[in-house]
Amino acid sequence: MRRRRIYEGKAKVLFEGPEPGTVVQYFKDDATAFNNQKKGTITGKGVLNNRISEHLMLRLAEIGIPTHFVRRLNMREQLVREVEIIPIEVVVRNVAAGTICKRLGVEEGTPLPRSIVEYYLKNDELGDPLVSEEHVTAFGWASTQDLDEMMQYALRSNDFLTGLFYGIGMKLVDFKLEFGRLWDEEEMRIVLADEISPDSCRLWDINTNEKLDKDRFRKDLGKVEEAYQEVARRLGVLPEAGPVDMQGPQVMQ
Amino acid sequence: MRRRRIYEGKAKVLFEGPEPGTVVQYFKDDATAFNNQKKGTITGKGVLNNRISEHLMLRLAEIGIPTHFVRRLNMREQLVREVEIIPIEVVVRNVAAGTICKRLGVEEGTPLPRSIVEYYLKNDELGDPLVSEEHVTAFGWASTQDLDEMMQYALRSNDFLTGLFYGIGMKLVDFKLEFGRLWDEEEMRIVLADEISPDSCRLWDINTNEKLDKDRFRKDLGKVEEAYQEVARRLGVLPEAGPVDMQGPQVMQ
Ligand SMILES: Nc1ncnc2c1ncn2[C@@H]1O[C@H](COP(=O)(O)OP(=O)(O)OP(=O)(O)O)[C@@H](O)[C@H]1O
Ligand SMILES: Nc1ncnc2c1ncn2[C@@H]1O[C@H](COP(=O)(O)OP(=O)(O)OP(=O)(O)O)[C@@H](O)[C@H]1O
Ligand SMILES: [Mg+2]
Ligand SMILES: [Mg+2]
Repeated sequence: MRRRRIYEGKAKVLFEGPEPGTVVQYFKDDATAFNNQKKGTITGKGVLNNRISEHLMLRLAEIGIPTHFVRRLNMREQLVREVEIIPIEVVVRNVAAGTICKRLGVEEGTPLPRSIVEYYLKNDELGDPLVSEEHVTAFGWASTQDLDEMMQYALRSNDFLTGLFYGIGMKLVDFKLEFGRLWDEEEMRIVLADEISPDSCRLWDINTNEKLDKDRFRKDLGKVEEAYQEVARRLGVLPEAGPVDMQGPQVMQ
Repeated sequence: MRRRRIYEGKAKVLFEGPEPGTVVQYFKDDATAFNNQKKGTITGKGVLNNRISEHLMLRLAEIGIPTHFVRRLNMREQLVREVEIIPIEVVVRNVAAGTICKRLGVEEGTPLPRSIVEYYLKNDELGDPLVSEEHVTAFGWASTQDLDEMMQYALRSNDFLTGLFYGIGMKLVDFKLEFGRLWDEEEMRIVLADEISPDSCRLWDINTNEKLDKDRFRKDLGKVEEAYQEVARRLGVLPEAGPVDMQGPQVMQ
């Protein structure tokens, strides 16, 4: 059976799903940073992110946050509802790290006075610029109501995930969410889409502050694969090692 | 009479005022751009901006927008209420120009879908970064209520000034406002502060789109002095030319 490839991104490939309104997300080992200036491979990342994202999306669904996730298909693929991606990345920050440090002159590791929700325009050419609600609504990328809903989901996800990671000895420093629109019998709904993984979260060991996320790749800190494995292991979703880890997508066009 | 100098900025000097709670703004001819990287002089600018800002602050006060302005003292000085400056520059944009073009990939001159209000942190070292309401309130630079009030004043100013400039053949492309807090008998009030002038506004001739503002200096377009004079002339506040134009502050320490 040949599947149509819909989109190839930096970390994932999207294939047409088995039924209308679905797509298959194939998780690659490719890693990029600094808006594609740095490229590399993190062996096994795709397999682990597939599991980690499955786990986190399912747990968020259980507390009532709607997601695109349907089911995991195999080591590197998951079936999701096809959505119209809202071109805004929603970032929630609890502790200063990454761009906010340079931007606002805050030292990495400084706890923020409160959790901060930021919006970035999904546009690689422009370098995913920070935007405010004004830009989002004026240019029609999302409505005020959409943003309110996204912010509520983002804040609830933050509370839940902060607790979940705290329970396994990790600090949720910040994370990025994407949302999409889907239509169920004419009714538009906004759901959590894309992935939640060490590619899109900053996670620090609670005792040592050791980074257990993509910053190990960004900053050449070494033990990159090990960090992803450690997150999967603590979440209880580390798969048995096996040759299947190295498989490419089952059918490529 | 010797006056204490409180602050020397890029375009103005602040002196202690004649009575407590007041300061004197002395308008210099110095011009800077691109966060101080470009420096120069625009002969007569201080005299003209003193008049232009006086005029616009008075007209805004008449429609009920509270300002720091008390009265003009002489060619280069005006008396204002001393305020605690809120460290947020409020920018209102009607047409794309300046940083928003590169940032969001919009061509200069494109009318925006609607007027956009932006907040920038007043911090030269950080390059006055764009911030959103989240940053402003989380870091305590202003409260949600302060921001609401500032945004309302900014939008009303935009409506009024758009009309006023339209009436004299100019398009108000964008402008920057600063606000400050003052206390009248224990009660905190937010008022418009600083200045409103071709240094802080983009003004284009309605027929020719000729720039009549500081962009002539930023982009080395020539006829810089003439542009400031033209704005003052059309507003009806161009002073008689005279040697007093070249005077320094009356007393410097
Ligand atoms: N349920 C979904 N339906 C449709 N598209 C989705 C869904 N979930 C995620 N996507 C999109 O699929 C793509 C996943 O690929 P990947 O994460 O590799 O992209 P990317 O290289 O990060 O580029 P982008 O800047 O587009 O995110 C993203 O563009 C993402 O927005
Ligand atoms: N009523 C007021 N009371 C106190 N300070 C004021 C008042 N109005 C304006 N200011 C402040 O006075 C200074 C005016 O100087 P100038 O405009 O030259 O500063 P600047 O070089 O632009 O630097 P800044 O980045 O501080 O604005 C500004 O810092 C402005 O915020
Ligand atoms: Mg992506
Ligand atoms: Mg200034």
